[in-house]
Amino acid sequence: MVFDRPTVRLRPKPGRRHAASGAPWSFTDEVVLDRRTKAILPGTIATLESAEREPIATVAVNPGSRIVLRHLDPDPQALIDEAWLTARLSRALALREILFDAPFYRLVHAEADGLPGVIVDRFGDAAVIQPNAAWADLLIEPLVSALQAVTGVSTVVVNGQGRARGLEGLSERMDIVRGRVDAPIAVPMNGAVYMADLIGGQKTGLFFDQRPNHAFAARLAPGLRVLDVFSHVGGFGLAALAAGAESALAVDGSAAALELAGQGAEAAGLGDRFATRKGDAFDTMAALAGEGAQFGMVVCDPPAFAPSKTALEPGLRAYEKVARQGAALVSPGGFLVLCSCSHAADLERFRAASLRGVARAGRQGQILHVGGPGPDHPVHVALSETSYLKAIFLRLD
Amino acid sequence: MVFDRPTVRLRPKPGRRHAASGAPWSFTDEVVLDRRTKAILPGTIATLESAEREPIATVAVNPGSRIVLRHLDPDPQALIDEAWLTARLSRALALREILFDAPFYRLVHAEADGLPGVIVDRFGDAAVIQPNAAWADLLIEPLVSALQAVTGVSTVVVNGQGRARGLEGLSERMDIVRGRVDAPIAVPMNGAVYMADLIGGQKTGLFFDQRPNHAFAARLAPGLRVLDVFSHVGGFGLAALAAGAESALAVDGSAAALELAGQGAEAAGLGDRFATRKGDAFDTMAALAGEGAQFGMVVCDPPAFAPSKTALEPGLRAYEKVARQGAALVSPGGFLVLCSCSHAADLERFRAASLRGVARAGRQGQILHVGGPGPDHPVHVALSETSYLKAIFLRLD
Repeated sequence: MVFDRPTVRLRPKPGRRHAASGAPWSFTDEVVLDRRTKAILPGTIATLESAEREPIATVAVNPGSRIVLRHLDPDPQALIDEAWLTARLSRALALREILFDAPFYRLVHAEADGLPGVIVDRFGDAAVIQPNAAWADLLIEPLVSALQAVTGVSTVVVNGQGRARGLEGLSERMDIVRGRVDAPIAVPMNGAVYMADLIGGQKTGLFFDQRPNHAFAARLAPGLRVLDVFSHVGGFGLAALAAGAESALAVDGSAAALELAGQGAEAAGLGDRFATRKGDAFDTMAALAGEGAQFGMVVCDPPAFAPSKTALEPGLRAYEKVARQGAALVSPGGFLVLCSCSHAADLERFRAASLRGVARAGRQGQILHVGGPGPDHPVHVALSETSYLKAIFLRLD
Repeated sequence: MVFDRPTVRLRPKPGRRHAASGAPWSFTDEVVLDRRTKAILPGTIATLESAEREPIATVAVNPGSRIVLRHLDPDPQALIDEAWLTARLSRALALREILFDAPFYRLVHAEADGLPGVIVDRFGDAAVIQPNAAWADLLIEPLVSALQAVTGVSTVVVNGQGRARGLEGLSERMDIVRGRVDAPIAVPMNGAVYMADLIGGQKTGLFFDQRPNHAFAARLAPGLRVLDVFSHVGGFGLAALAAGAESALAVDGSAAALELAGQGAEAAGLGDRFATRKGDAFDTMAALAGEGAQFGMVVCDPPAFAPSKTALEPGLRAYEKVARQGAALVSPGGFLVLCSCSHAADLERFRAASLRGVARAGRQGQILHVGGPGPDHPVHVALSETSYLKAIFLRLD
């Protein structure tokens, strides 16, 4: 079989190193970047050759990205068409159908699900695709068709926003490519209901990755007054209420997110125990401390304070401050939940910053649990050090 | 208040370093080890002074251990009596009563629960104490009395076996100090029933720490044929069966453990889907591979192959071999669960060894989840790098 597609080649030494790593990426220094390769249209499918010119894989090329190659298939003759996409999506779906009773989950988690750079979140009859690599942008039509065929969803949103696309040289986009989105979608999770805004919300509208951490917090929550800082649409607070918390106060800077959180509370019949406070998280925690407020559980789930290496030090200082302010609001014997979704801050650094903050608040305690993302966010074996989400559960004396 | 008890003193520089760390231990190099201190009876309660002779804490002394001091209370005048023990046990119990519906759990997890070196596992109306520090050995009577008063258990076993006591210079012991033990105790966990032998079994008779990992495996198990290698009393296999696995085959070198596993399966009405195979794990996995056997889920939960730094390299090789043999028995699309309870092998090293083994079996896959011990095994904030239990869940192509 002959393909009318380009060939790219690994450089000898880095190429061998690369092959040994099993990584699903090749970086600029691993690939022969001659004029011909540099001229390849971003997202083009190509055949990868070893330095010895032996075909070894099918890849997607993006000469404009630090990740020059994304490995799609170990078969150098693989045809990346709707049938191929369908097979990958079917495998991803099979896992989620084992894991979950209802069709609300991350369906595709990029490299680990064999679809490099592609995120798909499913919300029942709707799905949101984030094509964060050039090849997926080019193949978005067969990808959407395969997604519909495999899942049966009637609505598909293509959400091309966020930092990852910039690194690939892709422009922003937001399109409803199938069906329609008239209103937020009610998502059942951990006994609560969350309202996901697929168009105007953060990321795809809901953070499915925190599901097991919401569940763990909910287990501790019965009878407690819960403070949910950086609440977004109510992730921790609503799960705690559904499990029997006495009350939940959600703090967020976004009025739209708090409005959705309130709708979620109403939808689950929890509205009478739920309150919101719009404002800066640090200012609001300081104000609550000034009021002498105390909570049986304080959860702080901030946005990524350390999204990159250059932001690491200020990010860690911000995590320490969150921990200090949060700890000061926990009643004796209560719980403090501290989360980080920063790639650059690994567990060790994030935990150290958090514990410094707790100590600065004059509090002592024990670590009950350290949670990560749910299993609908699998990790590629060669990228296993990249798990970004950390949730530390403490009980304070 | 004047105490008739010794005083020990920190050395200037290491002492300040120690105080800053918040650690619940002081090592030989941090303490003034004069002739008087060296003569203190192991386990004696003492007042700790800073280098400037200021009383700063109440500690237990063991001049014969590398851990010379175990910090019991920040109050230098704390009286370590039955009332003090009762307060610590009550706090530990309060947490477990939030976490669990039934009284089967690790009640005291040593330093993190404020009782350094002391392990207590609870089995309904019975409890097993492991006094792995000299002070707890000396105070075993008030400790047992406080335990009975706080929990109401009628049977108390003192299990003084295992490696930790040797490091403290303590001899082995095994005594039923309250009530009686006539038979294994049926422990309900994750929908299964486990038979715990409080006297003749490994450790305290059951490994409560794996509870959340058993639960995660069970979630994946419906309809699968499960192989549970190093099964002990059936931890993973019985939970998988209770969740709907088609069958479970338990492999262990101990006939007694397999007998208890079989009794657990019968007690839960799962006996017709449960089988055992006594033998060396490596040999048995090789034999199964020779028979062409394949399983939808393979679990390998070996004893600590790397209990100490000197055992690290051979230990990692053993973990790699387990992963390779286990991976070879997983059917396409099935699950591989690899566990380590080795302190010396941190997650990074254990994961790398495991993934090498999987690759050597010629298998690829994704990491779904990395689990740790359950929250009845809390961690002291100053010892947060010591979490020993790791469970890696993979799906293999």
